[in-house]
Amino acid sequence: MRLGRRAIFPLVRTTTTTTTSAASSRPAVLSVGHALRERRRFTEADVAAYAAVSGDRNLVHLDDAVARELGGFERGRVVHGMLVASLFPSIIAARFPGAVYASQTLKFAAPVYVGDEVVARVQALHIRTTTAANSSTASRYVVKFATKCFTDEEEGSLAIEGEAMAVLPTLELSSQSTTN
Amino acid sequence: MRLGRRAIFPLVRTTTTTTTSAASSRPAVLSVGHALRERRRFTEADVAAYAAVSGDRNLVHLDDAVARELGGFERGRVVHGMLVASLFPSIIAARFPGAVYASQTLKFAAPVYVGDEVVARVQALHIRTTTAANSSTASRYVVKFATKCFTDEEEGSLAIEGEAMAVLPTLELSSQSTTN
Repeated sequence: MRLGRRAIFPLVRTTTTTTTSAASSRPAVLSVGHALRERRRFTEADVAAYAAVSGDRNLVHLDDAVARELGGFERGRVVHGMLVASLFPSIIAARFPGAVYASQTLKFAAPVYVGDEVVARVQALHIRTTTAANSSTASRYVVKFATKCFTDEEEGSLAIEGEAMAVLPTLELSSQSTTN
Repeated sequence: MRLGRRAIFPLVRTTTTTTTSAASSRPAVLSVGHALRERRRFTEADVAAYAAVSGDRNLVHLDDAVARELGGFERGRVVHGMLVASLFPSIIAARFPGAVYASQTLKFAAPVYVGDEVVARVQALHIRTTTAANSSTASRYVVKFATKCFTDEEEGSLAIEGEAMAVLPTLELSSQSTTN
């Protein structure tokens, strides 16, 4: 009896399919294990714009000396944690237009310095279909995502860790660009 | 034997002291139970500015028809949940310059529509002093806050609920303005 590789290793998990903004062969439909990524560098101008719109003018984001002395951040000014975390709903919204955010947990594990490049990763952990109360409305999908942000390309240095729940109108990935 | 009110009701909790941005008699030092508030109305311009800096151009925030049809938001465009939630670190940073955010949980319970006024409330639940590893550095304070945002002045209609942990350089409340 000859066995194919799948039969020989029946318990081996399928390698996690990953996509990036630039991927040409992205999967058409989200499934458990799929990871969506976005790379981003937050500039001084981004931090200033965010400080203005949020009202959060904490000097650890705007003044190197304060960041070092009061905040204990060796390399100076750090990006607002909530601005870095905005990448998570941003990634989801870009791939699933009309997505609605239900919850988010965030643990700020390490600082992201102004000008540093980060990689945000959103990975589907669980997918549940909801039947609409109004039968004229289509079903929706409640998806739990692991949400992580790294300060290195190898995704070894964690800056933010958490989970998000979002309600998606469809599991079909939009081809809408996520570039900024 | 005559007893004062405190002795008669030894287990009665002290009424929560609250402060607002405009309060003239704010407490000088943060203690458990203190609540800090900020009132804010997010305009169309705020939402557009946040969409630009975060990259989150989800049309439920920018297009009334999409918000109603795909998002199920009766009154149209809603403010990004993470923008509303930015009020929490913003309030903390305004009162405690140099504060560092450690974590945040967020449950988005109800939508905040563009133009609606909200009241964000941050209330100290627990305060712990940390002894600095480097003896030349001053102690810091790890504070757990209940973080809530309401869509009515009576604080009965909850839009966002969660908790935050922040590390404060001091418990002394700064008189720095939080107005935007």
